[in-house]
Amino acid sequence: MKLVSYLVAGRPSFGIWANHGIVDLGKHAPSNATLKDVLDKVESLFAHAADPADYAHGDVQLLPPVPDAGKILCVGLNYKSHIAETGRDTPNHPILFPRYNSSLVAHGEPMLRPRASVQLDFEGELAFVIGKGGRHVAADNALDHVAGFACFNDGSVRDWQRHTSQFLPGKNFWRSGSFGPWLVTPDEAGPIGELTLQTRLNGEVVQEAQLDDLLFGVPELIAYISTIMPLEAGDVVATGTTGGVGLFRKPPLFMKAGDRVEVEIERLGCLANDIIDEP
Amino acid sequence: MKLVSYLVAGRPSFGIWANHGIVDLGKHAPSNATLKDVLDKVESLFAHAADPADYAHGDVQLLPPVPDAGKILCVGLNYKSHIAETGRDTPNHPILFPRYNSSLVAHGEPMLRPRASVQLDFEGELAFVIGKGGRHVAADNALDHVAGFACFNDGSVRDWQRHTSQFLPGKNFWRSGSFGPWLVTPDEAGPIGELTLQTRLNGEVVQEAQLDDLLFGVPELIAYISTIMPLEAGDVVATGTTGGVGLFRKPPLFMKAGDRVEVEIERLGCLANDIIDEP
Repeated sequence: MKLVSYLVAGRPSFGIWANHGIVDLGKHAPSNATLKDVLDKVESLFAHAADPADYAHGDVQLLPPVPDAGKILCVGLNYKSHIAETGRDTPNHPILFPRYNSSLVAHGEPMLRPRASVQLDFEGELAFVIGKGGRHVAADNALDHVAGFACFNDGSVRDWQRHTSQFLPGKNFWRSGSFGPWLVTPDEAGPIGELTLQTRLNGEVVQEAQLDDLLFGVPELIAYISTIMPLEAGDVVATGTTGGVGLFRKPPLFMKAGDRVEVEIERLGCLANDIIDEP
Repeated sequence: MKLVSYLVAGRPSFGIWANHGIVDLGKHAPSNATLKDVLDKVESLFAHAADPADYAHGDVQLLPPVPDAGKILCVGLNYKSHIAETGRDTPNHPILFPRYNSSLVAHGEPMLRPRASVQLDFEGELAFVIGKGGRHVAADNALDHVAGFACFNDGSVRDWQRHTSQFLPGKNFWRSGSFGPWLVTPDEAGPIGELTLQTRLNGEVVQEAQLDDLLFGVPELIAYISTIMPLEAGDVVATGTTGGVGLFRKPPLFMKAGDRVEVEIERLGCLANDIIDEP
């Protein structure tokens, strides 16, 4: 099942992206409810997957699958191939930094190269979203807490990422990253390690990895994070990027207005965005 | 004027902490509104400051002044005296890392030493809260965007802060920091640079600084952050701690169950919390 958040006739709602169209779930929920409010009981949504469609696919304007995440945690240096290209040591613990919702756009929306920099880089990633919240979750049970998986472009403004030791500034420029098109529930995603991720810039493959190259996998990330803080429905974790980012190419390859970037993961879909300059 | 968020008879609301009691503002707002929803028009609240009190001070249980901040950005190494004790270079840009709401308690609530570590340290700080949002805010106009100031204890779990290059884990343990007791509006706070901050552990002064020792002041922080992302009503910025933290003492001084920590800033009040072990 593919879960989506969207605008329809200017109004936000959420539902199921089915082959036969959009099944709206917002109509069953209290007003102002969003997708994250139902993610702790995803199983209860399956019954609606064959409901008649409320909208055609083309009637809705997609939002990021969780446009109002309570937190978005990103992992750095989590692929062996990316660690090698950066020349850094293999980390003993997950490297965690934040993104805020304002830094992300949906599939099909333009990503912005900011006024402040020309060093906008791509980072194709697997993201997962928490369904059932929890604290002190053991890795053995951690997958029970995942509502679904999605593609993620951790768009990075490299000079601002390197202003200080902390990555936050370079990872949070307004509308500099992307998330979507939808959230794929675990039954449809299947075993994550067997999936391949590909990032393409203007059609050319710039990153490619199998997801079993992750240093810290989904269960280990959930266990680590939930030792620190409670995980809540709708929290997003972007699991890190693989080798091939623009910064470490010779010469460096940054994105500019007119470029098209795609992050595709088997069974999860293709997240595509055009780059424009910040107005 | 002192603005507070609180529980009264188990129900969340917000209002003015006046000398004669609590003037509830939630009753004028839509249900589910919180203090951050009125911070972009703080001036309109002054008219209520002399209204009859709805509650006695003792009737309410304080929450952090903004319990549902969209983002909480903390600044590292922002006092010359603290930079000296760490032995690090003076940063050229603000060092920014996040806290999440779940990491903070209110004045009077216990702060938790987590199960995972014995290295819970204090960091007394000045925090400010955004009223009017904005992007690309010039430093010259930045103070127009501040709704108020508060005391902040950026409680830090030092070993987890040093797991990797990124501070996030050590700064986000559940209920490991504190914020409050209230938000003091700029008219009452007066010129910030002339205020003195003091952190006390069990009554002993462990940190003391005048706020004009800040490397990046409030206007510069607003300008830098808003170049990256939009600032929104209720966003919190904790401006960094001064010298004297427990980690750099010989021997190190960490907090343990039974300790009482206080962060006091002239004209802003005293934020006091007892330490207990995480249950």
